[in-house]
Amino acid sequence: MTLTARAYGAPAPAAPLVPLSIERRELRPHDVLIEIEYAGICHSDIHTVRGEWGEQPYPVVPGHEIAGVVAEVGAEVTRYVVGDRVGVGCMVDSCRECAPCLAGQQQYCENGFTGTYANTDKRGEVTQGGYSTHIVVTEDFVLRIPDGLGLDVAAPLLCAGITTYSPLRHWSAGPGKRVAIVGLGGLGHMGVKLAHAMGAEVTVLSQSLKKREDGLRLGADDYHATADPETFKELRRSFDLIVNTVSAQIPLDAYLALLKWEGTLVSVGLPPEPLSLRAGALISRRRSFAGSNIGGIAETQEMLDFCAEHGIGAEIEVIPGSYVNEAYERVLASDVRYRFVIDVATI
Amino acid sequence: MTLTARAYGAPAPAAPLVPLSIERRELRPHDVLIEIEYAGICHSDIHTVRGEWGEQPYPVVPGHEIAGVVAEVGAEVTRYVVGDRVGVGCMVDSCRECAPCLAGQQQYCENGFTGTYANTDKRGEVTQGGYSTHIVVTEDFVLRIPDGLGLDVAAPLLCAGITTYSPLRHWSAGPGKRVAIVGLGGLGHMGVKLAHAMGAEVTVLSQSLKKREDGLRLGADDYHATADPETFKELRRSFDLIVNTVSAQIPLDAYLALLKWEGTLVSVGLPPEPLSLRAGALISRRRSFAGSNIGGIAETQEMLDFCAEHGIGAEIEVIPGSYVNEAYERVLASDVRYRFVIDVATI
Repeated sequence: MTLTARAYGAPAPAAPLVPLSIERRELRPHDVLIEIEYAGICHSDIHTVRGEWGEQPYPVVPGHEIAGVVAEVGAEVTRYVVGDRVGVGCMVDSCRECAPCLAGQQQYCENGFTGTYANTDKRGEVTQGGYSTHIVVTEDFVLRIPDGLGLDVAAPLLCAGITTYSPLRHWSAGPGKRVAIVGLGGLGHMGVKLAHAMGAEVTVLSQSLKKREDGLRLGADDYHATADPETFKELRRSFDLIVNTVSAQIPLDAYLALLKWEGTLVSVGLPPEPLSLRAGALISRRRSFAGSNIGGIAETQEMLDFCAEHGIGAEIEVIPGSYVNEAYERVLASDVRYRFVIDVATI
Repeated sequence: MTLTARAYGAPAPAAPLVPLSIERRELRPHDVLIEIEYAGICHSDIHTVRGEWGEQPYPVVPGHEIAGVVAEVGAEVTRYVVGDRVGVGCMVDSCRECAPCLAGQQQYCENGFTGTYANTDKRGEVTQGGYSTHIVVTEDFVLRIPDGLGLDVAAPLLCAGITTYSPLRHWSAGPGKRVAIVGLGGLGHMGVKLAHAMGAEVTVLSQSLKKREDGLRLGADDYHATADPETFKELRRSFDLIVNTVSAQIPLDAYLALLKWEGTLVSVGLPPEPLSLRAGALISRRRSFAGSNIGGIAETQEMLDFCAEHGIGAEIEVIPGSYVNEAYERVLASDVRYRFVIDVATI
């Protein structure tokens, strides 16, 4: 028997989000029913529901930063029991057969992972996300939220956290490494906390010095305004790793010049426009420009455990469901420190 | 006492190369005097003498693919004796103190290595290159050319060889890896030979199929025309590593799409114009776009030894000095298979 859940979703591309009822599937043997408590608002939710990333299967219920409690488990579920504190991120399934899947990097699934919302799953059903009272997910794509990590501050870890954790780990942020985080928003503030906890020396590169105090409080050792041309002179050849969380176009050559010999600039933000760069900045010091997409399931669990161990959660503003459209406007205006989280009891 | 050497050089940016006499410095304690036998013609020689890479200290004697025999050694030279077969590449000195230098990666010297020609060395003297009967170089920047490797086919290894060898090694070309070489010119034909000898599966991506037979003979397993749009469909997500030897603008997004998950596109050719790319191609599969510049001194020696062991030399057309201006025109027209080498006895 399906379950009717309350949700907030967009009925059409140009429409605001409204309260909806959606059906959650009957539990299959490996499914977990989660009673959602909190759902983070990610910038990509906005792009998607507004149809800016292509046509969508409306109505769209967004949300891929999900934290809640297990309410029921399928007959063959072995990993979770009712009452477990759990989370769901950007993926609810993948092909499980390709090289990246077999390597536990489901986010790079050759056949395309199943996105948590606005995606068609293997059975042809359209997925609906976390701005909702319940969700049903196969246990392999459910994460455990460790005790001691509040569900509210944990929710954004499922996307903003893992999206910055994965490149920091992959490119070896740690003691003795100088790491710059470009942009101090939802992703960037997690990048600062995580890189600092990994032991790296962290610099924030933000447009202005407006959030400087915050940045230092979150763990940055240094903070520079990118609107100031002196920044690019002063920090020339300084960083082993730069994680760019900004989805707008940035002057890549100027940022590449901030990398040391063999340094890497990793983009996790996806600007809609093509970027321009000169190969010379890469060639002259064997630098790399790379991209990184969220993280694998095992790596996401590792990140959650790391966060619990280091007392790291997102900085959040908890809102009721009815505030979601206003919250969207504020996200677009970069007017949130640093993540909106919907209290799902209110929807 | 200085030594007067015969040479070919450019007296001015717009002028053809002409016979010149140049002075080579008196041997310092660690210097080696080399009687040059062969000097390869590199595309960058042409850019430099024509002033396309900025102002130059004319007259400019180019040439950084140098092979010859030791004619005299300074009082404290320990590595070489008269009669040794030796080579000199793109560098004749570096700061020897910065991190890359201490790591044996002098090509990334933080203070700028001393280029073999058209550069000012530590003592303020302008360097002159290998289109010349003699050169004086400090022993630390002299390479040993193993017996069994002809000096004529060895000369181009000092730039074209190491420029492709270094990225192939750095990004682990070898058995089980699929490597594409973009462009089958001076650099590209060495890339094919070297990647094949390293055990990788090698594909040439060339504008047309004109040189296909050559490519297969040199060691390629496969050969595709980039002018054919089918190539980009057929080879989607095929390569672990793509080495781009083309200095013209290429459609980066199309090439990035040929990389597997976590693959790397490395540019060794330096296009004068900025390149355009979309971050999405990098993010979706954790791909990288990187650059690589020649190689370190120890690595260059390793490359020469590797070439001797595998019977690898450049494919060359030996020319007299008087042919150099005509050779330049043919290089610009891609009309050489695959490197011109000046027989220095003729200059």
